[in-house]
Order: sequence, then structure tokens, then C-alpha cells
Amino acid sequence: MKIKVGIVGYGNLGKAIEKKVNQSENFELVAIFSKRKLSNTIDYRDIEEYKNKIDILFLCGGSQNELEDQGKKLIENFNIVDSYDNHTRLKRYIFDIDSLAKKNKKVALCSFGWDPGLFSMMRALFDSLGFAPYTFWGKGLSQGHTQAIKNIEGVIDAVQFTLPNKQIEKRIKQGEDVKRDKSFHKRLCYVVARNKEQERIKKQIITMPDYFDGYETLVHFVSQEKLDTIKSFAHKGEVITQNNTMSFSLNLLSNPEFTATVATTFAGAIYQLSKEKKYGAYTILDLPINRILKKDKFEYL
Amino acid sequence: MKIKVGIVGYGNLGKAIEKKVNQSENFELVAIFSKRKLSNTIDYRDIEEYKNKIDILFLCGGSQNELEDQGKKLIENFNIVDSYDNHTRLKRYIFDIDSLAKKNKKVALCSFGWDPGLFSMMRALFDSLGFAPYTFWGKGLSQGHTQAIKNIEGVIDAVQFTLPNKQIEKRIKQGEDVKRDKSFHKRLCYVVARNKEQERIKKQIITMPDYFDGYETLVHFVSQEKLDTIKSFAHKGEVITQNNTMSFSLNLLSNPEFTATVATTFAGAIYQLSKEKKYGAYTILDLPINRILKKDKFEYL
Repeated sequence: MKIKVGIVGYGNLGKAIEKKVNQSENFELVAIFSKRKLSNTIDYRDIEEYKNKIDILFLCGGSQNELEDQGKKLIENFNIVDSYDNHTRLKRYIFDIDSLAKKNKKVALCSFGWDPGLFSMMRALFDSLGFAPYTFWGKGLSQGHTQAIKNIEGVIDAVQFTLPNKQIEKRIKQGEDVKRDKSFHKRLCYVVARNKEQERIKKQIITMPDYFDGYETLVHFVSQEKLDTIKSFAHKGEVITQNNTMSFSLNLLSNPEFTATVATTFAGAIYQLSKEKKYGAYTILDLPINRILKKDKFEYL
Repeated sequence: MKIKVGIVGYGNLGKAIEKKVNQSENFELVAIFSKRKLSNTIDYRDIEEYKNKIDILFLCGGSQNELEDQGKKLIENFNIVDSYDNHTRLKRYIFDIDSLAKKNKKVALCSFGWDPGLFSMMRALFDSLGFAPYTFWGKGLSQGHTQAIKNIEGVIDAVQFTLPNKQIEKRIKQGEDVKRDKSFHKRLCYVVARNKEQERIKKQIITMPDYFDGYETLVHFVSQEKLDTIKSFAHKGEVITQNNTMSFSLNLLSNPEFTATVATTFAGAIYQLSKEKKYGAYTILDLPINRILKKDKFEYL
């Protein structure tokens, strides 16, 4: 019996989940929901009608605020999987989802991707073993920072690449105890905007709190044609410790496809958890690897 | 309240566990048991007298056969943690321990170290996500292979270093689908033996089934003084996938100390499991990371 799947949101991640689900023998794609009117999507406002026809809903909402509201509403009728990554609001969100899931006898897997996700797992593992973890991202396109630039008035299009500071990475691996700060990463922005707006936009970017202020930030204005050649789904990153005692790294051809791989792989656990009446919200730190095994565990020992 | 700890066996691993336990505020070392008569150890034959005085027994027996028998006997009266690594017998052993643990209302953590252990976890994680894992060990001293050489008649002392084949490692990282075989590793042996025995010993080493036969094996005869300078606890290794999409690596100054770190870190989970009446045998694939956290899980997400 296949797991019946729905997808909410049809951006990069939604499309990557669709591809994964269609490639897998374990899943059956029932519907994709979107607020936009697209030929292959169902109107999001009609989603409640599907509440008995879908086993797992993947939340791939465009903006983070949207995802939060959707999660709290949809958990009343659906098991959900999300890759929610707003680090400052995540704890509150997961607490809310957990109590709603328990109340409605549902299971939610929250923040399943590679960061948060696999990287969270490695940071927790390394730190619990006594080795303080350091995370480096990039080079890769950051969706959140790209969106932050796009939200600035006058910006026609943009991409933001996060670059790790290779010098600091090297010093940590050589054993130095480096204090974590914004010097760990550089931010490289390519922006399409009219000439007369560029000076203001550049200033707005480099002074933006949380996102760019305090970071070494480079802003390049380019044509739309140039920008289209720069865009890339590739991403990488690593979690390391002093002296390189432990390290975990990812080199991804496609950031959304890998996030979709993690989310769909762990989604299978919803069935077992639901059958065991273990309702609530789970993160990757709450699930043992045996929940996702396709072979006998002794194959790996 | 401190966790009361006992150690069975006082070799490299037993000593490393002793050091870890003494460094930690969570543990109280009650006794070290050994069959040898040492000034700071208790006679192993008296261990049953301690059955109500010890919360966790760390099994650090010298030989693998010994460990297996000890585990099955001691689980009747103690919660145990072991780093049992006989891959061909492991499944049978863990099944036996599991049923004995359930019968006697005990908890056993089996095969907790880095391989089996952390590397098992990574192999299972990578494979379940759809990325076939390849494991490389070394350069590092292999306890099992060293012991196999020492068991040969006429060998006075020996060490065996396992070396990874860097060329094959590179080809996999570049994307090649390489078939797993004995060419992945070389075996470098340093042996102390009398001149007239050397030819026979060398032949016995390189033809030894499972351990050396089929491997590129180099045997060097050296003096005891030379051997003592060669011995090293350092070890390293990695679990990688094609195209280097995912990789996990360890660089250890001391193999037994790191094994002790993993074993003692996960040992804390025994208390919770026992309190929850979840008796039985667990491997690292059966425990979520939240069982070992020292901080709030949201610190890592």
C-alpha cells in the first residue's frame, strides 16, 4: 500500500518533492496545492476536502511566515512534514505544532532538511561527545538571503551566495579555538536594478540587520541575462570540530533536491509513529536511524 | 546522584574508560574487574557480589570470544555497555543479549564505539538517503589484526597498520562506481621474531584467511626497541559516497580514548531506558540523538 502524499506550495522545494515522490515506489502523489492558479495544482483553499485522502502533507510554502501559519492550521487534519528553518522562531513553532498534533492525533516532522536537519544532528552528536561543532555553509545560494534582497524596493531580481571563510576553517582544523562570529562567512550579492536606484539599494543591503550587517558583504549590479547564468542550485557545507577530530560534509548538486530527499526519506516514519500512537512533533534529533532503514540494521554494524 | 560504574577488563579500552569515568561528574567508579591479579582490580570471579552496587558495567574484555561469553552471563545481573566488533557474529550475539536483557529486566548497549558505532550510523544514514556508503580505515593500528599476528607461534610482538587506498578513495569522490573489494586497504605489519622463524611467520601472515589473504600485505621484521617506537594509538577513517555528496570523517589521537568517549556518552541513556522499562539490547541505530543531549535540542536546530 502506497503512502498518499500531498504537497503544499509549488516553488523549488515543492517541485523537488514532486520529483522524489514520483520516483519512489512507496508514494502516490494525490495533489499539489497552491495559492497561485497553475494548470497542475489544486486551489489551496480547497485543501480541507482532502483530509481523508492524504496520509502526509509536505509543506513547501514560499515564505517562512506562510509556512508557520499553514503548519498550525493543517496539523488539525493532516500529518505534516516541513523544513521550517527560521532559527529564532523554531522552538516556539515546534512547541505549538507538538501540542496541536497531540490534540488532533497527528504526527509532524519539523525542520527536516540538511540545515536544519542533518547538520543539526551532527552538531548535537559532536557536541554531546565533547567536541564543540563549527558550521560552515557554502559556497551556495541562500534562499533566505536572496528573498531578503528581493524584498527591497526597486530590486528586480537577485541572488545571494554564502561563502565560507576558508582561512578560519583551516585554523579550526589545525586546532585553534576560534570564537564564532560573522567573520566565518562572506555574503556575495548579485542584484538587478535600475542605475539610479543602485546606491540606495546597496546601502539597504549592507546595513540590513541579522542578514548582512556585520558581515563582509559584496554587492554587484548585473543585467538580468547575467543573473540568469549565475543562478545555481548547487550548495555545500560542513560541520567540523577542532583538530578535525570529527567532520561531516555535504556537496550538493541541488540544494532543493537534497532537502526533498531528506524530507521524503524520514516521512516514511510517520506511519509507524502514527500506528504506535506516538502523536506529536518530531525533529531529526528525536528519531533513531532505525526508523528509516530499508535493510536489516546488522548490514551496517 | 552519580551513575555507579564497573569496568570488566583492564587493557587499553578498560584504561580509557577508567580515565573517562574519573573525568566525568556523572559517574562514580565502583570497581575494575580483571582475571589478572593487579593491585587496583577486583578478581573477576567475585563480580556477582557487586550486582546491586553497580548501575552500568562496561565490558572491555581482551579477546572477542571472552567478551561474548561475559556479555551473556553478566546481562543476567547488570546493565552492560560493550564495543563488540566481531562483524560476522554480531547479529547472533545481539539477538541473544536482547532476549536475555528482556528476561532479566536489563538494558544493554551493544557495539558502541566508532566502528561499529558512529560509522555504522553514518553508513545506515547515507544508504537510507540513497547514497551508497564506502568505508575507509586508517592509517591506524588495528587491534584485531595485531592480535591475529601475535597469535602466530614464534611471534614475540607485533603491530598491524591498516592503510586506505587513496587512489580508490579519490576515484569514488570523483564519482566512479567502484566495486568494494580487498584493494580498498593495505596491511602493514611490523613483527618481532627470531631470524630463523621469520620466513615461516611471514608466510603464515600473508596467507591467513579473512585477515590478510587477498590483501596487499607488507611484513617487516624489526627489533623490539624499534617496534615500541612504532606503536601508536592514533587512528582515522571515513565513510564517503560517490561524488563526495556526503562524507563523515574521524581523525583520532587515541583510538581507545575515542571509543571510550562514545561508550560512556551513550551509556547515560541506560538510566532513561531502564526507567521507561524499555529493556533489551540497543545499537547506535536504535537510539535517537536526544538520548545523549546535554543541552536543549533547539540549540542545535
